[in-house]
Amino acid sequence: MSKDRTHIEKSFIAQGLMLTLGAQIERVEEGSVILSAPLSDRVSQQHGAAHAGLTFALGDSAAGYSALTLMGSDTEVMTVEMKINLLSPAFGDRLVATGKVEKAGKRLLVVTARVEAETDGQRKLVAIMQGTMIPVPLS
Amino acid sequence: MSKDRTHIEKSFIAQGLMLTLGAQIERVEEGSVILSAPLSDRVSQQHGAAHAGLTFALGDSAAGYSALTLMGSDTEVMTVEMKINLLSPAFGDRLVATGKVEKAGKRLLVVTARVEAETDGQRKLVAIMQGTMIPVPLS
Amino acid sequence: MSKDRTHIEKSFIAQGLMLTLGAQIERVEEGSVILSAPLSDRVSQQHGAAHAGLTFALGDSAAGYSALTLMGSDTEVMTVEMKINLLSPAFGDRLVATGKVEKAGKRLLVVTARVEAETDGQRKLVAIMQGTMIPVPLS
Amino acid sequence: MSKDRTHIEKSFIAQGLMLTLGAQIERVEEGSVILSAPLSDRVSQQHGAAHAGLTFALGDSAAGYSALTLMGSDTEVMTVEMKINLLSPAFGDRLVATGKVEKAGKRLLVVTARVEAETDGQRKLVAIMQGTMIPVPLS
Repeated sequence: MSKDRTHIEKSFIAQGLMLTLGAQIERVEEGSVILSAPLSDRVSQQHGAAHAGLTFALGDSAAGYSALTLMGSDTEVMTVEMKINLLSPAFGDRLVATGKVEKAGKRLLVVTARVEAETDGQRKLVAIMQGTMIPVPLS
Repeated sequence: MSKDRTHIEKSFIAQGLMLTLGAQIERVEEGSVILSAPLSDRVSQQHGAAHAGLTFALGDSAAGYSALTLMGSDTEVMTVEMKINLLSPAFGDRLVATGKVEKAGKRLLVVTARVEAETDGQRKLVAIMQGTMIPVPLS
Repeated sequence: MSKDRTHIEKSFIAQGLMLTLGAQIERVEEGSVILSAPLSDRVSQQHGAAHAGLTFALGDSAAGYSALTLMGSDTEVMTVEMKINLLSPAFGDRLVATGKVEKAGKRLLVVTARVEAETDGQRKLVAIMQGTMIPVPLS
Repeated sequence: MSKDRTHIEKSFIAQGLMLTLGAQIERVEEGSVILSAPLSDRVSQQHGAAHAGLTFALGDSAAGYSALTLMGSDTEVMTVEMKINLLSPAFGDRLVATGKVEKAGKRLLVVTARVEAETDGQRKLVAIMQGTMIPVPLS
């Protein structure tokens, strides 16, 4: 097992969408990763709140990287499936997504994520997610 | 009921994320909307395939606009929850997402979406989605 | 690959819950299985409609056996995850669940199920399901 | 709001499936309900573990009754949708499902459940669930 941040960062900077969304890594622990992304007109839905697509993308990535902290450097993970429940419209300065590995099985990992919207340092839970990741050997 | 494309387009162009992702409306029918988005380094994951966040965002929007075709012009819809199963890595020129209303209830709408990756005009199914939309009166 | 009905039946009759619920196999095709179960007070929720647990159990089993039709006789399948959207209360004489394999991958199978409630031969769609099955070698 | 256990029990004993499965109420708090059900051949899948249908039925009911603790006695709740991830095969003496309301909105409630299998008093997490409940006025 490895919680080597380098492995996570190397993968993260190769994700064009994370760059496009302005996302960054906030924290890396064994089995848990926190990501954030700024809120702006570039990622909104029609009412100015964050688009569900942004909330999903950030939470899915936080969950995936949480799984990756338990893999060796010769392994990647991919999303098998993911479900999101949206609790409140996501208004504020930025989104913060906390991923967590709930169960690391031999063949699959079950993960969750909680996404909060932050305004002036105050956070409000806006989405919860639950899904499955699969290890993929790096070729 | 209304399948007035103007209602859909007005909402769509107000979605900053759809613009950021280069998405466009391909087709609007009563209860079904097709959207597309180009694939590029800007929306990739670490292996060059489309990020699950893009696939989700496009499918979720196609499903949401499918629901919106059944609403009057004084109503919007929001995603309550959505689940995605990723079937294959999404490589190609663009993604095409087809949304569909499975059940239009009084209080909620159940929707599905199928997302395909297109390469030289050939399409391959890359994701299926199933979720719930809720009507929201425009203020 | 095998669509040998014997393989399915052998597994089915070993499922205590299917017996308890009075479920039976209606049809077995390659990649699709149809199951049914009678509706009664024994499987109701508090308003007399079928409990979501029954609807889920039947649809999940139909989906799982659909996956099993693509496996050899030395392999079983287990549910990794499953999501159900309930469209209408399930009143009637019996439930009929149609499972289908959407994608048979090497490591996982993506499946769907549609569950209908039947009254005097008339069927009404009451639930749609989407999930993941994993092959497990029989020991 | 009401955490009146009578309201919960009255609904529970009207659920035929809960009786068929031998389920019982372990604990009722505001926003959280714990249910249990014995494991036996009557609710097994083909390998003797609890059928996913039982695990789902118990967790779904625990989640639903958690929502009901926040409703007045003139209101019921119904499952809109529910997703289950199965973490481990459920072997043991009984299942214990803990439901929790994550967000009580005006129109919908987002709920989760954790289901454990208990053997000689030792518990092991076997499933996590995430879903949506909707209040329904009692007629």
